[in-house]
Amino acid sequence: MVSEFQFINHIKKRFSLDRVGDDCAVLPQNRTTDLLITADLLIEDIDFRVDWSTTEQIGHKTLAVSLSDIAAMGGIPTSAMLSIGVPQKLWDEGFPEAFYRGWHKLASQFGVELIGGDTSRSPDKLVIDSIVLGEIPSGKAVLRSGARQDDAIFVSGTLGGASAGLMLLESGQPKLAKTEKIIDRQLCPFPQVELGKQLRKLGIVTSMIDISDGLASDLLHICEASGVGAVLIAESIPVDPIVLEIADESFQAALNGGEDFELLFTVPESKVSALADLPVTQIGTITSDRGNLEVIRDGTRETLQPSGFQHFS
Amino acid sequence: MVSEFQFINHIKKRFSLDRVGDDCAVLPQNRTTDLLITADLLIEDIDFRVDWSTTEQIGHKTLAVSLSDIAAMGGIPTSAMLSIGVPQKLWDEGFPEAFYRGWHKLASQFGVELIGGDTSRSPDKLVIDSIVLGEIPSGKAVLRSGARQDDAIFVSGTLGGASAGLMLLESGQPKLAKTEKIIDRQLCPFPQVELGKQLRKLGIVTSMIDISDGLASDLLHICEASGVGAVLIAESIPVDPIVLEIADESFQAALNGGEDFELLFTVPESKVSALADLPVTQIGTITSDRGNLEVIRDGTRETLQPSGFQHFS
Repeated sequence: MVSEFQFINHIKKRFSLDRVGDDCAVLPQNRTTDLLITADLLIEDIDFRVDWSTTEQIGHKTLAVSLSDIAAMGGIPTSAMLSIGVPQKLWDEGFPEAFYRGWHKLASQFGVELIGGDTSRSPDKLVIDSIVLGEIPSGKAVLRSGARQDDAIFVSGTLGGASAGLMLLESGQPKLAKTEKIIDRQLCPFPQVELGKQLRKLGIVTSMIDISDGLASDLLHICEASGVGAVLIAESIPVDPIVLEIADESFQAALNGGEDFELLFTVPESKVSALADLPVTQIGTITSDRGNLEVIRDGTRETLQPSGFQHFS
Repeated sequence: MVSEFQFINHIKKRFSLDRVGDDCAVLPQNRTTDLLITADLLIEDIDFRVDWSTTEQIGHKTLAVSLSDIAAMGGIPTSAMLSIGVPQKLWDEGFPEAFYRGWHKLASQFGVELIGGDTSRSPDKLVIDSIVLGEIPSGKAVLRSGARQDDAIFVSGTLGGASAGLMLLESGQPKLAKTEKIIDRQLCPFPQVELGKQLRKLGIVTSMIDISDGLASDLLHICEASGVGAVLIAESIPVDPIVLEIADESFQAALNGGEDFELLFTVPESKVSALADLPVTQIGTITSDRGNLEVIRDGTRETLQPSGFQHFS
């Protein structure tokens, strides 16, 4: 069957949907500003488990994933809508109040105002659609499509923590002081809005995406949108130090683990020095080999098959 | 337990959310135009049944309910996003393609462009969040809050068809030529965008809402937002003629049946003549009796308890 990525590409072509396919849609707002808008659908037992998180954490993560999309364009979030479908039992237990408390705590850090949405009953699973609007100076949104041959590939922060945290939750192992931090990365991610804005202001970033599906998958999204390929240097990928310590497959976690919500972006090789003071790491180079991802590890160059998260395969 | 309306009022007060609570949120866009945005969450077996509709009809209705919210502000729809959570079985059967075909057919009638959204897997139920953006001249959005004492209350079209259509579907009776039209009102509603725009341009409409929960419930939303009451004349309510013919409780269907997606609005009594050529009917008058709905039927005046659709009670 087709994956959701293939389906979206199919309807984009069939109905000439030029604006679909980046982290946010970009619409002209006025003479100086473009409007950004993004939606993220989160479904219980697919995207989160209610028994692993506090209700406040679910509220936090709901907003964080959409703020991360605004960050990936270099934008500034402004307002939001929430559509929630709540099973009767969770409603009776006061779920919406606690959920909204967690949501609002993060929203107030970014000055994001709730302006609307919808509240519905759901037969069994909790369903949330998170919609966030943002602003950016006209024409300055950083798209996925601007990566060019020989651009350097960078990533912010460290990778693999969120997916290793998820594996720990799935294993049912008791929480340890050491592992709490990566479990937090899974349950309570922090969106890189400030860094995204800084990067956009430098004016040198040619493409950007947030890491939600996994480094390899999201890099492939950039490559496909830009009509280029990429080669990664395995040893330079900043694996989360806790993951390095505890996981057998730490490199796989960093390469294919989703939901780190770090920023993945490209800059021309000649401009790399402008990033010196930022918490970012160069991990590879854009090639002309369209749609082809490679990794050099222990001196060997091999093709990379992304196995990051997708809903349908 | 609290209803969803009570909960929304509660968080509005608690977090000072001034923009929440109308059919659409209104945001300033530029010097001449405001942006409208609305979201509608539709969940299988709560808001629709996949075995009653064609997939194209589900796509049509998804967009129609949100276009109706734009209509209720007097706005012009421009673009849209779709978040869909699809069970694997429906995905494998090609649901998204047919759904999008039905959606796009209606969208193209209104020049609405799909600009984004999200596609996810859902464990068992189909879930759709429909987001529509629109435009309106600055400051001209028709809110729920402008109804004043002695304003005349109007409704467009006829009422009760959609809920009678739903009852027929629920009863499992075979479709008849006579009943097809009201079943279509339930499965394939048409949003009153053109009428909403005409009404707004007249400049005399003091408040407006679309009838999604039911005439009495939606009139109560206007009364609560405006700090007024209302009295309806039962005999003047335009009940769908097919409903009059086939339903024992045709008046109840018109009063409390949801999803007719007609427009309910108020105008000062002195301006009523401006509506002469429009397909609208005067059904009552706004009173100063805050939050109190009454109906005069067979010469008797009685208090009205809305029993229209709500998800939690």
